[in-house]
Amino acid sequence: MAKAAYEELCAHSKKTFVLSSAASVLSWDQETGMPPGGGDLRALQLAELAALSHERATDPRIDAWLKVCEQDAAMRSDLFLHANLRGMRRDYDRATLLPESLVRELAATESRAQKAWAQARADSNYAGFQPWLTRMLELQRLKADCLKSSGQSRWDALADLYEPGMNATDLRALFTPLRKRLVELRAKLDARGRKPDESLAKVEFEVPRQEAFVRAVLSAMTFDFTRGRLDRSAHPFCCGTLDDVRLTTRFHKDNVLDALGSTMHEGGHGLYEQGLDKDHQGTPLAEAVSLGIHESQSRLWENHVGKSRAFWQWCKQNAMRELGPLAVPFDADMIYRTANVVSPSLIRVEADEATYDLHVMVRFELETALLHGDLDVKDLPLQWNRLYLDYLGVEVPDDRRGCLQDVHWSCGLFGYFPTYTLGNLYAAQFAAAARRAIPDFDDQLARGTFADLREWLRSNIHQHGRRYTPSELCQRVTSAPLSSEAFLSYLEAKLCAVYEI
Amino acid sequence: MAKAAYEELCAHSKKTFVLSSAASVLSWDQETGMPPGGGDLRALQLAELAALSHERATDPRIDAWLKVCEQDAAMRSDLFLHANLRGMRRDYDRATLLPESLVRELAATESRAQKAWAQARADSNYAGFQPWLTRMLELQRLKADCLKSSGQSRWDALADLYEPGMNATDLRALFTPLRKRLVELRAKLDARGRKPDESLAKVEFEVPRQEAFVRAVLSAMTFDFTRGRLDRSAHPFCCGTLDDVRLTTRFHKDNVLDALGSTMHEGGHGLYEQGLDKDHQGTPLAEAVSLGIHESQSRLWENHVGKSRAFWQWCKQNAMRELGPLAVPFDADMIYRTANVVSPSLIRVEADEATYDLHVMVRFELETALLHGDLDVKDLPLQWNRLYLDYLGVEVPDDRRGCLQDVHWSCGLFGYFPTYTLGNLYAAQFAAAARRAIPDFDDQLARGTFADLREWLRSNIHQHGRRYTPSELCQRVTSAPLSSEAFLSYLEAKLCAVYEI
Repeated sequence: MAKAAYEELCAHSKKTFVLSSAASVLSWDQETGMPPGGGDLRALQLAELAALSHERATDPRIDAWLKVCEQDAAMRSDLFLHANLRGMRRDYDRATLLPESLVRELAATESRAQKAWAQARADSNYAGFQPWLTRMLELQRLKADCLKSSGQSRWDALADLYEPGMNATDLRALFTPLRKRLVELRAKLDARGRKPDESLAKVEFEVPRQEAFVRAVLSAMTFDFTRGRLDRSAHPFCCGTLDDVRLTTRFHKDNVLDALGSTMHEGGHGLYEQGLDKDHQGTPLAEAVSLGIHESQSRLWENHVGKSRAFWQWCKQNAMRELGPLAVPFDADMIYRTANVVSPSLIRVEADEATYDLHVMVRFELETALLHGDLDVKDLPLQWNRLYLDYLGVEVPDDRRGCLQDVHWSCGLFGYFPTYTLGNLYAAQFAAAARRAIPDFDDQLARGTFADLREWLRSNIHQHGRRYTPSELCQRVTSAPLSSEAFLSYLEAKLCAVYEI
Repeated sequence: MAKAAYEELCAHSKKTFVLSSAASVLSWDQETGMPPGGGDLRALQLAELAALSHERATDPRIDAWLKVCEQDAAMRSDLFLHANLRGMRRDYDRATLLPESLVRELAATESRAQKAWAQARADSNYAGFQPWLTRMLELQRLKADCLKSSGQSRWDALADLYEPGMNATDLRALFTPLRKRLVELRAKLDARGRKPDESLAKVEFEVPRQEAFVRAVLSAMTFDFTRGRLDRSAHPFCCGTLDDVRLTTRFHKDNVLDALGSTMHEGGHGLYEQGLDKDHQGTPLAEAVSLGIHESQSRLWENHVGKSRAFWQWCKQNAMRELGPLAVPFDADMIYRTANVVSPSLIRVEADEATYDLHVMVRFELETALLHGDLDVKDLPLQWNRLYLDYLGVEVPDDRRGCLQDVHWSCGLFGYFPTYTLGNLYAAQFAAAARRAIPDFDDQLARGTFADLREWLRSNIHQHGRRYTPSELCQRVTSAPLSSEAFLSYLEAKLCAVYEI
């Protein structure tokens, strides 16, 4: 009976997956190629598929099947079974805990808050967004109250949606020493007063050449183009899974390193998705375990590979030939230094490795305070600007470039931001473990041989899907709990070398 | 109460449309850009959406709503209402007349027959396909028996699926004199023994130049790229409707006229879809009325515009500049003659305008005989080859290029082929009517002004959707029932001029 129930559960899960994977292709198309006129119908298509997926994900039979299986599984030691049941239970509970009325209210408010935010940002007028942020916080508190288990704070309940197990207490313990060291590092680099050569960043390369270049790198990374694509979109992303993984990147004539970074970043996400275990397609065992772990894969390829000296030794002699004669004058070392310039910015998406996490910490401080009522909505801009000065040493000139800079809060993503930093920390810890496992790691990169690294990632991380929790996975792969040590050692060593400190 | 039922009907119809339009984007993606690995999942996605659409299209509430509305509508004279109800009734009956078991059996047999056909064709081995054709015919007879109304033959019942009202008796009355005149015309051109210059067809143009060329023509045709796209696929097609219409074409280095013809053909389909009435989106009033009328739109643009002397006067001086210096030596008249070369071929898809319909008539004769048991399956190749010699004057060298040449029968499309010829006849009759309505028709084409023609087609044909039956539409637009006169006058006049007879 439990076997039959488990089969029903898996079949049901796969049917839901088939629908949501169809929606994913439609979303991809919307961002890459849909004619502008198609937008209205596309919204209806996506809403229809989302409603059908939601209906399936909340089918009460799931709960009944799960109860049968959970009772039976308590007497078994099958890790796969346990992991799948745990994943399905988590997904079912999360899909059913929110009342329909709140889901609808959230969707409607997000849609209107988005518009209000876009207008407020265009006008750099915080007052235009303030009532929407207030309302959004009220709804997020209601949402958190539906989700939270005993002992969880509201923020923790929201954060757990994106990173199972993440909570503000653990994060603060990670972030406080990390911030101290990063602020010190920034000061040290500032004091050195020496900027590496940045000229490559300014050369204008034709877009078709840039595209050939990033495709050559993606191929070398072993991204499988028979099971994936690369296209262009305004904001790079990765969607799809397993045998149909779609990446996008973007090209600016005068910023080839941005195109490369975006491509390697999305390529890292894509390798994770291609590396899941197809035997379990459509069930939690073939799904990424968390946003933080997903981000570790993109940041590992973008930074630990793509901003390493060894990578540029290969890249300059090989993939970069696609850029043509304008690229000839640059040597590998010069580009390596350019790729690692540190220069505090006003927004995370343009940040270097040394200041990136400081943006995340500003957001973390502010959103926990907002959500728990320790910061009044009207005081947000003042507080935002104070923290930017404090952490990053930059003066925020206006709210457009300050607290109105991006879309996360207006579309209801509270508890999401720290996954970016978790990604960096996991990436560093994984990269250090990969280096221990692959003794000639740098030599391989310098030869453009990325297969061993990809294999290590696949067998240690990708193929497990949601078999382990993020912290179990970290412990298993790196023999240590998550800390910022690997990240800081890596970063300080690299930047001190680049800046000749 | 009838008003409420009608609103329910329309809302339900629109919801079904939203799902099937999503499937259409996924099919387009499958043919244009899906990575090969994505095929398995895509098949599941399309099957799932087809099942959901079928479930909606056969919802018994439709019948109940329809009955309420039909009773009420009998007392009203609202043409739109009547047309929508007639369309919905037709669709519902057709979706529910076949028992589930037969639908499944057909789908399974088609899928296996396709594979058997592909193998038999590769081997030019009719014996390998014969049992599948036999089985397919048995199933098609069962299908016809479910569909046919009193007085309809089995073939008529199948043909009516593609062209409402089409029947073998009317077709034979159209085809018999048409065949006689076409065979005579072919003989006359043969006797003339003079081939127009064909050299443009042999020049190798780079694919990006060809693409720029066909895009320029499509823009001139007023295809709206803010509500549509053009991509490449192995077999050109048009899918989508209204604000998201997707065309594909194909390019061969040494056959720019094929790329142009395919593009203008699909462009004609696309203009029809873009020209439907958006106010009725998702209901029969915003759907193409029949395959024959759809094909009339593609053939009108492909042949009546794209193979006219006036068109080439404009095209040579304008769009053709995109082809670069290799195109310079050709003059408009020379290309016009090349585009109108008559040369009987073994397959419809490569046929010129004078012999195209003879391919269709061969198929019509054979499939009516097969379906009604007047031709034994084992005798098909002999009979196929005899008719090709008789109608087209060509010797069929083997079954691969003979009765195994294409996919229609193996995928169950009986009763479909004649819509190609209906398309040609409607196109000619519509083009003649458009010429009467637009006195400077040729001057407009020679200036590259296609807006008046497009507007005439939109207001007379496109915007009506399924408001009229195909024959009502023809009578309305051309003040005459369908005949082959307009087509033959047009063709004989053009070809005698080209061949200087």
